[in-house]
Amino acid sequence: ARIAVLPGDGIGPEVTAAAVSVLRDAAARGGHEFEFSEHAIGGCAIDAHGDPLPAETLIVCKQADAVLLGAVGGPRWSDPKAKVRPEQGLLRLRAELGVYANLRPVRVHPKLAALSPLKNERLTGVDLLFVRELTGGAYFGAKTRTADVATDETKYTTQEVERVARRAFALARGRGRRVTSVDKANVLETSRLWRETVQRVAHEFPDVALEHQLVDSMAMLLLTRPAAYDVIVTENLFGDILTDEAAALAGSLGLLPSASLGDGKVGLYEPIHGSAPDIAGRGVANPLGAILSAAMLLRHSLGLADEAAAIEAAVDRVLDAGVSTRDLGGDAGTREATAAVLAALN
Amino acid sequence: ARIAVLPGDGIGPEVTAAAVSVLRDAAARGGHEFEFSEHAIGGCAIDAHGDPLPAETLIVCKQADAVLLGAVGGPRWSDPKAKVRPEQGLLRLRAELGVYANLRPVRVHPKLAALSPLKNERLTGVDLLFVRELTGGAYFGAKTRTADVATDETKYTTQEVERVARRAFALARGRGRRVTSVDKANVLETSRLWRETVQRVAHEFPDVALEHQLVDSMAMLLLTRPAAYDVIVTENLFGDILTDEAAALAGSLGLLPSASLGDGKVGLYEPIHGSAPDIAGRGVANPLGAILSAAMLLRHSLGLADEAAAIEAAVDRVLDAGVSTRDLGGDAGTREATAAVLAALN
Ligand SMILES: CC(C)[C@H](C(=O)O)[C@@H](O)C(=O)O
Ligand SMILES: CC(C)[C@H](C(=O)O)[C@@H](O)C(=O)O
Repeated sequence: ARIAVLPGDGIGPEVTAAAVSVLRDAAARGGHEFEFSEHAIGGCAIDAHGDPLPAETLIVCKQADAVLLGAVGGPRWSDPKAKVRPEQGLLRLRAELGVYANLRPVRVHPKLAALSPLKNERLTGVDLLFVRELTGGAYFGAKTRTADVATDETKYTTQEVERVARRAFALARGRGRRVTSVDKANVLETSRLWRETVQRVAHEFPDVALEHQLVDSMAMLLLTRPAAYDVIVTENLFGDILTDEAAALAGSLGLLPSASLGDGKVGLYEPIHGSAPDIAGRGVANPLGAILSAAMLLRHSLGLADEAAAIEAAVDRVLDAGVSTRDLGGDAGTREATAAVLAALN
Repeated sequence: ARIAVLPGDGIGPEVTAAAVSVLRDAAARGGHEFEFSEHAIGGCAIDAHGDPLPAETLIVCKQADAVLLGAVGGPRWSDPKAKVRPEQGLLRLRAELGVYANLRPVRVHPKLAALSPLKNERLTGVDLLFVRELTGGAYFGAKTRTADVATDETKYTTQEVERVARRAFALARGRGRRVTSVDKANVLETSRLWRETVQRVAHEFPDVALEHQLVDSMAMLLLTRPAAYDVIVTENLFGDILTDEAAALAGSLGLLPSASLGDGKVGLYEPIHGSAPDIAGRGVANPLGAILSAAMLLRHSLGLADEAAAIEAAVDRVLDAGVSTRDLGGDAGTREATAAVLAALN
């Protein structure tokens, strides 16, 4: 299998290196052949090639079986007036790969409940899977700008909603068989189309329960009743906001993985944390989000579900044993945490 | 002073009646003359007049000094395919009155910290004032719909951003002198205009500190560091989501007031809770959000800051004394809680 590795900016290179070492270990133990190649994206690609998604990077990603990404961006490239921004590379990559369903699981490891801002009794049983639509909505709609006026268009087609809704229902079948669809149907036309379409797709999945929530209510319910939800499906911008809110429940962003899937063969895997320029290059970044993203890669792109589960179990044991990086209140470095995962696997 | 009262749907009539009795008390004690008149809005206005904002209601509101509103909506009127919806009455009223700045203070009464989903140490010192832009953005942009495609346009002009930003900075002067502006400038054109414009307005307020946050980060920071913020200014849709999230911190929506202000003389005051159809008409709704909205009305529309502060202090004493409605885990009814506030005032 060919895996394109896009380290990106900030702590991206450190955490992808950790994830690659765990993937190499899985390959060695299972007798699989993984071919890794590294390519530029984001701010460093702007510096080197004047383009946050160089043509070469895109070609390789399209031909790969899976893409493992670190993080993009940083203050150096974030002047709002800049014509080229690191994020554009990531957004174009998502669109070009057609990975319309962004899966973000949120679980709270018992050892880390103390780090969560939420009272621990609320956290018991929290096991969420967000399915965020990733290639539509305001992110990709028409934009205009004059000196005094700016516009962003949010657009959704039934086909775009159907495919991500089907993915959410299908995933719910392997879990709690409940889907919560989030929109703002009392105000937005795109949300009314969203709600009607999800409702229609639900008929294909009579064994899965569906409920609808407005995005403002959901922002509240994630705090008051986080354990009450199973799969949460929503559009791109609402998903961006709600998944970060939910991520805060887990105590640290550093642990959380994501998988972005389309109908094509290639999936895109990235930890949900950012490039954390303040700690970049210091060997203290938490590699677990990237390592768990690698586990999702094994499961969703390479069909290696057992290997994925083994890595997830190893990460759990490492946390159980109290190994913790700075973001988790400990002093383990990136290498030490990675070595602990490898040791737990072997 | 003329006060238009729009009870609306669900628990709206119960809580506005409570707020009116507190306003009558303030008038009697201070020798002020308040004239109250009641008008239809929302679902009940659809039932009675076929219009969620009847012409008569709008005329009276425009001529009033202030509008006190309960809540609109309910399952009876919330078919997404319905041509007329209760919310449209509220949205049109906001636009017609030009109340572009929606003030939502969030404080956590110490007695209620136990009800908050957040760990109590995180709540210490939380004192937020959201200033949500209320008459622009996706709520009021052009919308289209065909069988298979829907669009919503988000549009902002510099003038719309300037006026709400100025309001936020001016309010920060009377508080902690810090403004956090929230946008999604790494993706949206309207957010880049927002950020540049807020930055420019900041120069008029050199004594107030400004920082920018992305909306996804802010959704997280409200949980991890809620006490670190003072005034938070943002656009309409982000404000809808973030204020509900922040409201959850307070332990109950039932307590939280809001004021919507423009450049004209009339302000619109409403508790942030909804119409709560499940408990409507049973005399158990929490009237404190509506009563605190009446206090904001006295302060912002009638220039009666002392009277406003007296009501706020009375509500604090009532909570200190342990009076609590069902949403706060107690069994005081709407009348009982209202009577307690009146007793604390006299
Ligand atoms: C970097 C940014 C464009 C991106 C997004 O908004 O999608 C990030 O916040 C995310 O959630 O992956
Ligand atoms: C009822 C609805 C249209 C309204 C809004 O979204 O503005 C409400 O949620 C609010 O926040 O006041």
